[in-house]
Amino acid sequence: MATGWFDAAAGLPWHPVTRAALLAAAEDGWADPGRMSGPGRRSAQLLAAARESMAAELGVQPDEVVFTPTGVHALQQAVLGALAGRQRAGRTLVHSAVEHSAVLHAAAWHVARGGAARSVPVDGEARVDPVAFAAAVAEPGVAVAVLQAANHEIGTVQPELDTGPVPLVVDARHSLLYGPVPAHGAILVADARLWGGPDLGVLVIRRGARWRPPFPADESQAGRGLGVPDVPAAVAAAASLRAFRAAALTGDHGPRLGGYLSRLRAELPRRTPDTRALGPEHDRLPHLGTFTSLYVDGEALLSELDRRGFAVSSGSSCTSDTLTPSHVLVAMGAVTSGNVRISLHPEVEDTDVERFLAEFPAAVAAVRAQLPGAATEPQPATDAAARVVDSRGRRCPLPILDLARALPGIAVGAELTVLADDPAAGADIAAWCRLTGQELVSGREESFVVRRVR
Amino acid sequence: MATGWFDAAAGLPWHPVTRAALLAAAEDGWADPGRMSGPGRRSAQLLAAARESMAAELGVQPDEVVFTPTGVHALQQAVLGALAGRQRAGRTLVHSAVEHSAVLHAAAWHVARGGAARSVPVDGEARVDPVAFAAAVAEPGVAVAVLQAANHEIGTVQPELDTGPVPLVVDARHSLLYGPVPAHGAILVADARLWGGPDLGVLVIRRGARWRPPFPADESQAGRGLGVPDVPAAVAAAASLRAFRAAALTGDHGPRLGGYLSRLRAELPRRTPDTRALGPEHDRLPHLGTFTSLYVDGEALLSELDRRGFAVSSGSSCTSDTLTPSHVLVAMGAVTSGNVRISLHPEVEDTDVERFLAEFPAAVAAVRAQLPGAATEPQPATDAAARVVDSRGRRCPLPILDLARALPGIAVGAELTVLADDPAAGADIAAWCRLTGQELVSGREESFVVRRVR
Repeated sequence: MATGWFDAAAGLPWHPVTRAALLAAAEDGWADPGRMSGPGRRSAQLLAAARESMAAELGVQPDEVVFTPTGVHALQQAVLGALAGRQRAGRTLVHSAVEHSAVLHAAAWHVARGGAARSVPVDGEARVDPVAFAAAVAEPGVAVAVLQAANHEIGTVQPELDTGPVPLVVDARHSLLYGPVPAHGAILVADARLWGGPDLGVLVIRRGARWRPPFPADESQAGRGLGVPDVPAAVAAAASLRAFRAAALTGDHGPRLGGYLSRLRAELPRRTPDTRALGPEHDRLPHLGTFTSLYVDGEALLSELDRRGFAVSSGSSCTSDTLTPSHVLVAMGAVTSGNVRISLHPEVEDTDVERFLAEFPAAVAAVRAQLPGAATEPQPATDAAARVVDSRGRRCPLPILDLARALPGIAVGAELTVLADDPAAGADIAAWCRLTGQELVSGREESFVVRRVR
Repeated sequence: MATGWFDAAAGLPWHPVTRAALLAAAEDGWADPGRMSGPGRRSAQLLAAARESMAAELGVQPDEVVFTPTGVHALQQAVLGALAGRQRAGRTLVHSAVEHSAVLHAAAWHVARGGAARSVPVDGEARVDPVAFAAAVAEPGVAVAVLQAANHEIGTVQPELDTGPVPLVVDARHSLLYGPVPAHGAILVADARLWGGPDLGVLVIRRGARWRPPFPADESQAGRGLGVPDVPAAVAAAASLRAFRAAALTGDHGPRLGGYLSRLRAELPRRTPDTRALGPEHDRLPHLGTFTSLYVDGEALLSELDRRGFAVSSGSSCTSDTLTPSHVLVAMGAVTSGNVRISLHPEVEDTDVERFLAEFPAAVAAVRAQLPGAATEPQPATDAAARVVDSRGRRCPLPILDLARALPGIAVGAELTVLADDPAAGADIAAWCRLTGQELVSGREESFVVRRVR
């Protein structure tokens, strides 16, 4: 594995067990397991063995396990299937504001078809308030609740909730890698890409959970699948999960990676100006965290780190194509423009971490040095106590850079108006004011008024 | 490959090229191609190369190719995405009665959500009437039409239709193996399982075709995918299709398999009592056909052939789990209980075919010998000219066996009533009468009146 792959949450190379299991299972598991012939039966036996192995590793029953083509598909099936199964109980979906984008897209799809969805906000560490979440779930008409075990960008572990009669979907994709498989929740989702398995999602529908196929019917996997199950992939996913978790336990990977992450959280902000580690210090995933550097464009920082041999991600883990601001960062009120998510894989070593600690400050400095100049000098406004900075047409992070440059030029207690039309500017300016202790007096559309407090 | 694998239409073992390409592509194509880092870019390059290669093989443009997790998913996406893209034009889907069950399930899903679907009947050879199909498509409110290039159970080649402004979805999964890729149709579907590729579907959305994602949004593959694309599988699918079709051409596989099938169509009925080859002699797929033997239970025949080393399929290719009567056989008015679909793969040789010709009649005889005795002797009814056979509680094919045994016992011109409650009995008795030249006077619910004509 590339030693600079600090983007493990986007997937790992095939585990050696994946490769070996795929090749072996392709010999005897190529046929459709639904066929009544020798090859079909052998394939069915392999699929049953994979399901048993996966169930044992997840601590569930084999008939509770469904293999899906991708993790995204598993999330969609989990949420929409639970809603379909609970149609009589209501049509409202409750979810945290920081779920994976597949959950938010499924919620939007549900709403566009006459359903309802309620997003429960999170605090500045991306953690949901269990009382607020429980209250939202207790509202009339709530059919299904979704709450990840831990956040996939910040690493924040979410509270384990008992949602009573409302079935809870738990996105366990990242938390089960180095920790226990969640014992709560009616439906669980896992993704084999994250442990070096093949492209395959896993859906656990616990006995008693009401679930109905949300998409057109298909006969495979007792009506829960999508076409002929990929038997070699299922075998490889189960075998590699077992190998991954066994190595994680014996190799003490969780605590070791947690140590690396703590060092990164302590050192990156110390070595890099205007840089912070997001999320909580404790109650977090050991291998995954996000850092934010002010006055840096996330895409430029990614490219700079890539040139230095490190792969990280920026923005939402799922929107790197579109580069829209991460909905997770927006929900927690963080600056969205200059963040990097670091996610470590089990083979990361001390030297990789030390090298990253050496390169990151230089990469941030290099990107900052390339930033365009400040906006035109602040112009006196009609009100002598106020000034205007025109950042229109300038992409994030330039508006907060303009703000940071201009604010020292006005008196403490005076106000500065920033005009900015980048879609992320509003969230970024608000987050910048919180971070730096300045006051956002008003902000709407493309005009933001900031009072210098210190 | 098992020499007795006569079920190629259910999938093939991995082509050697599949294995080699998967392993090679997993080295450089494991990362999410949407990532802006070295591994992500290498993955994206491989995916682009796979798309180009697949497009070249299919005679389309690279940006028209979408990789989907399975062939079933490709069919669902094709039909429902075309409907979503044409919502303003109408909400009616027109399809032949003999499409793959994924199309029928998608149609039912569409109807359950307020849409409409119209099924166009086929003749006794499973062929759609182009005039009737065109008339159905010309009705007001028709948004999308679906017509397979060739039927997946009978092998019948369907007419190539120009549906004018209504986009046509063409299921080309079986026809492109040994023949040209259909040049007509706005949307094409292919399935890599059928050429020895990995589990992967291919969707071709030609430029200009209106198509919108029918399921929740996903950023992958320009909004047309489902989670991170399986890059190694895409590479392997493209490489194996190229290898498969090149070998088919140079090895003359199509004509050779067509010769085998012609021999089976001529010899199986000659050597096996009450056995017929279904579908047309010409204008058919070279490698795939269905045979029907009266007074045989399909499942028992499958098991018997399996014991003799041959894998075939029975019923609908997609309902072997449920063993419901094949909707294709019902639509063409064939007996549904004793049929086997034979589909040949390129490595089948003369000796395999000769061995099958030797084993099949013995297998049918063995299964017939195990059939339970006839129903209780026909009882005189109140009308002296009529008799009643009570086949209630007896599964197909027993009702038509009872009928065949009892009919010679009444006078020519007299009527016999068969009482039968197997769900397939109605279709089977009607088909038996057509086949044997007897007259079905009336048939409803569980009572069927047959007049002895000869």
